[in-house]
Amino acid sequence: MNALGKHLLLELKDCNKEVLNDVAFLKGTLLTAASECGATVLGESFHQFNPQGISGVVVIAESHLCIHTWPEYGYVAADIFTCGDSVQPEKAAQILIRKLGAKNHSIVEIQRGILDT
Amino acid sequence: MNALGKHLLLELKDCNKEVLNDVAFLKGTLLTAASECGATVLGESFHQFNPQGISGVVVIAESHLCIHTWPEYGYVAADIFTCGDSVQPEKAAQILIRKLGAKNHSIVEIQRGILDT
Repeated sequence: MNALGKHLLLELKDCNKEVLNDVAFLKGTLLTAASECGATVLGESFHQFNPQGISGVVVIAESHLCIHTWPEYGYVAADIFTCGDSVQPEKAAQILIRKLGAKNHSIVEIQRGILDT
Repeated sequence: MNALGKHLLLELKDCNKEVLNDVAFLKGTLLTAASECGATVLGESFHQFNPQGISGVVVIAESHLCIHTWPEYGYVAADIFTCGDSVQPEKAAQILIRKLGAKNHSIVEIQRGILDT
């Protein structure tokens, strides 16, 4: 089975609520996760919602990382989509789990772009 | 089952290869899909790779849409992640399928943020 991309879907629960509404912290965390896993950052877009919650995306040369936070529930949905063999998305996942203080998490891995050729 | 978000993962195959390397077309298509499904666009980030391929993300008030294209294979990976009841992600999916000329497609729907509360 030859897939073009690997997509990790992270469900992060019981996170440290204090950081889930801190856009500077989350941007730094996502950029750190990207660089530490070997990705090349190309761009980013983050938005803080009122009264709470943050959405952020980092576009990398190998696809993207994104995050959506619900501080009121201590919940974060994060995605790490990478292609190529030069990056280690699992490393980025562990950084997010640790930095966000997720006491419970699950990771679903989905192969993207399974072609017939 | 009460989920915070709905995440559609689109595998689009046998697409119109001519549009998969056209960043203006893809940006317009993703922004159209976002607005037509009722979403509020907050930001975007698109990148064209050399010699081919485009990655793009549109951050919406209801989460995000993103796209990664492989013109050489006629393949596109697209994600539509929405929360709330005011948007119709399926409508955005149909717009992407039609505009990209995907002759074969599959859509996997994943519930995100299923909390115990």
